[in-house]
Amino acid sequence: MPESPTEPAVAVLSEEESWHLLAGADLGRLAVSIGGAGDDRDDRDDRGVDIFPINYVVADRVIFFRTAPGSKLMDLTKHPIVALETDGTHHRRRWSVVVKGTAVRLGLDQEIEASGVLFLHSQAPTEKWNYVRVTASSITGREFRSSRQS
Amino acid sequence: MPESPTEPAVAVLSEEESWHLLAGADLGRLAVSIGGAGDDRDDRDDRGVDIFPINYVVADRVIFFRTAPGSKLMDLTKHPIVALETDGTHHRRRWSVVVKGTAVRLGLDQEIEASGVLFLHSQAPTEKWNYVRVTASSITGREFRSSRQS
Repeated sequence: MPESPTEPAVAVLSEEESWHLLAGADLGRLAVSIGGAGDDRDDRDDRGVDIFPINYVVADRVIFFRTAPGSKLMDLTKHPIVALETDGTHHRRRWSVVVKGTAVRLGLDQEIEASGVLFLHSQAPTEKWNYVRVTASSITGREFRSSRQS
Repeated sequence: MPESPTEPAVAVLSEEESWHLLAGADLGRLAVSIGGAGDDRDDRDDRGVDIFPINYVVADRVIFFRTAPGSKLMDLTKHPIVALETDGTHHRRRWSVVVKGTAVRLGLDQEIEASGVLFLHSQAPTEKWNYVRVTASSITGREFRSSRQS
């Protein structure tokens, strides 16, 4: 089918739509900074990035996820600025939502219980959980006309 | 069905399996560093991360993608260390592969043609493309026993 010249290839979604799509999904990818100046082991500027699949929940436009102890959380302590992406398909158009924000490890049981994150499904079941809250500084959403069906 | 105590919740995939899964997919998410010390506009340590959905191809364990001009590529010039994640479902188990590597914008038409990236599908069709090659420094793959069907 020929492409319609009036249909934009990329549509920018509203903040409202973006939050709606984000909250309707539960699998995202968290991008974090690693290494660099904050790393005591090394003075070189070895800053880099890492990326992790996570299951999350959204409550009142705040994002929560849980994770097993490890490098992911240690890096969040040093580099709390994160980006979270999720995407999906809607009426043969793919959408993608990206949240930028600040990650904080939850410390109080009440806060963890109130967040609803305890009910979160996870792809990597384990007994010992840490709970993290991401407060968004921005959210952007885009919808793409794909050149193939998906 | 009760979980088998002998089945690990998370299985580490071999490098071979990880490359196979990566090459068999074409939609990934690219995590990049943004801002920070390399940014002339600002002396604060405003380093952060951003994340973009991309369509990619793999040829001889090198990753290629194309993108419209913009902030993504400008940041790659300053911060070439990237992480690329892709995931999928295989026999009711989710897998995720993460490549860490260095991104270089391709300059020669011959190199671009040889890479096969010209045949790449894209979610955001536009006329003006830039072509980027990611040389992997590491690849890791994991497979998760999901707590739900997906």
